[in-house]
Amino acid sequence: MQNPVTVEVTRGKLVESRHRGMGIVVDGDGKVVFSFGDADAGVFPRSACKAMQALPLVESGAADAYGFGNAELAFSCASHSGEDRHVAMAASMLAKAGKDVSALECGAHWSSDQATVIHQARTIDKPSALHNNCSGKHSGFVCTCVHSGTDVAGYVGYDHPLQREIRDVMQSLTGATLGEDNCGIDGCSIPTYAVPLRGLAHGFAKMLTGQGLSHTRATASRRLMEACMAEPFYVAGTNRACTKLMELAPGKIFAKTGAEGVFVAALPDHDLAMAVKCEDGTTRAAEAMIFALIARYFEKGSETQEKLMSMANRQMHNWNGYHVGDVRVTDVLFA
Amino acid sequence: MQNPVTVEVTRGKLVESRHRGMGIVVDGDGKVVFSFGDADAGVFPRSACKAMQALPLVESGAADAYGFGNAELAFSCASHSGEDRHVAMAASMLAKAGKDVSALECGAHWSSDQATVIHQARTIDKPSALHNNCSGKHSGFVCTCVHSGTDVAGYVGYDHPLQREIRDVMQSLTGATLGEDNCGIDGCSIPTYAVPLRGLAHGFAKMLTGQGLSHTRATASRRLMEACMAEPFYVAGTNRACTKLMELAPGKIFAKTGAEGVFVAALPDHDLAMAVKCEDGTTRAAEAMIFALIARYFEKGSETQEKLMSMANRQMHNWNGYHVGDVRVTDVLFA
Repeated sequence: MQNPVTVEVTRGKLVESRHRGMGIVVDGDGKVVFSFGDADAGVFPRSACKAMQALPLVESGAADAYGFGNAELAFSCASHSGEDRHVAMAASMLAKAGKDVSALECGAHWSSDQATVIHQARTIDKPSALHNNCSGKHSGFVCTCVHSGTDVAGYVGYDHPLQREIRDVMQSLTGATLGEDNCGIDGCSIPTYAVPLRGLAHGFAKMLTGQGLSHTRATASRRLMEACMAEPFYVAGTNRACTKLMELAPGKIFAKTGAEGVFVAALPDHDLAMAVKCEDGTTRAAEAMIFALIARYFEKGSETQEKLMSMANRQMHNWNGYHVGDVRVTDVLFA
Repeated sequence: MQNPVTVEVTRGKLVESRHRGMGIVVDGDGKVVFSFGDADAGVFPRSACKAMQALPLVESGAADAYGFGNAELAFSCASHSGEDRHVAMAASMLAKAGKDVSALECGAHWSSDQATVIHQARTIDKPSALHNNCSGKHSGFVCTCVHSGTDVAGYVGYDHPLQREIRDVMQSLTGATLGEDNCGIDGCSIPTYAVPLRGLAHGFAKMLTGQGLSHTRATASRRLMEACMAEPFYVAGTNRACTKLMELAPGKIFAKTGAEGVFVAALPDHDLAMAVKCEDGTTRAAEAMIFALIARYFEKGSETQEKLMSMANRQMHNWNGYHVGDVRVTDVLFA
């Protein structure tokens, strides 16, 4: 199936670049409310499914045992920019379980956010695993293992009990069979599994509505999503799309991005969840698609809807601040 | 016309993202030697055509008047990373014409190269126009204006004599009609014109071979391309694709990238030039395409050809250094 052009990037009067993509909106029963492109194709959700991967932290009782509130839970679902408050939060979560940075197996990297990497360059010699954009998720993993009495060492491995549990959680939520054939290794070294976009969206709709879930899982799911909506800075950071979306309409939008052009969102007022993937893996297009897709469910002309559409269709400015072109979504998003 | 998938990005055993693109190889007569996708579509060459934009600097006599050698000429065709030697070169060129940073109209920005921005953050308060990736081209523009007795102020404007001259040069080389309808504003504020990829490649084939050009233009063209091949660091910088390509086979490859997934190259031993555009504007795909396209013209199994193919089909490693997937070109490049 040919994915349609969903986002255009213009310069002057012309289209300079085009992005193709797929997307789907489903309810808790898995009923498709809207879709475009090949929503049954397998897609690596990457970091977009972090709230699913954080479920063992809550379901095991570890989060309660360590006294984690909304900020810690939001951070366990985060792809953060490595700002000082993020780094401090990772260290604090690890300390609650008697651990430190040496327990993290995610690797280290400088921030990919320009303002943050400039600050980092001026304040630290080099980044540690605490600065890794996945250090929140990994700190949650370490806490889960310590609380459960499972070996922490090797917690990123395909056969480690924690990754087996996460695999079970994700199979149950997405309805996809996960195994070595659709497994890849993520940037932070844990397994990532390709699942149909439809299943990914349905998994988040189940988490949002609790439909088809045990009471324990439904409660844990809602708690994680509400924590992200309550503490959006800890999910991403300053000027980041996830943070801006969740700050825009508090309690009304859950949103999480993933590498290679994935974005998921859930709308509590509508009992709907959605997922998009840009075919070429570009973030600017994934963002434009999810902004426009979310906007469909806010009243036309309302402040929130207009703000969302101004994020979906935005001006690009050059180094002198001149308006040189636009990123804009196509009619595919409004069919 | 549907552009084919030319580059795939894999993870584990699966394709995670796909890039579509177009490309063309032509000789000095404009004869098409090889092509894929819609090579007649209009494409903004962006920085890929900087060697064309630098022709007035040489043809006017300004380059000789200021004693510019290969390094200065290469730098006048550059999209550089803002490394210290680049910044110093911009200041030096301007000083030859009795000017300084205040004459530049390109705007200022931090380097987009991670190692360089970290160094910049530690050594400067904020970047100036000397750090702009286009400061070499703009320094050349300022020198051209001063030498010709043209007002420097406003040299980026559509109606400024220098931009009129560049428009004439590019019309003549590409065979395309350039005007307000296909004009956009570039990142550095000068006009940029959409031209068919075929015309862009033919323009570089003319520059390489001198076919159809006046003696003055043929000589100036060859001098600029040879300067870039002689001083590849000044065209881009450490670990940058243009620099690596021209260092790989000295004197045998001229190459220049442009924003939004454009790349051009010329091969003196074959009297051929080529241009590619990634439909979605992604650099990783434009690079893979040009590496593979250039490799077609080196002997199979030779060190250069194997190195080019190892750049076209490359492993991706995560923060722990694990091999997680590949960027690879499709059979479209080998038809």
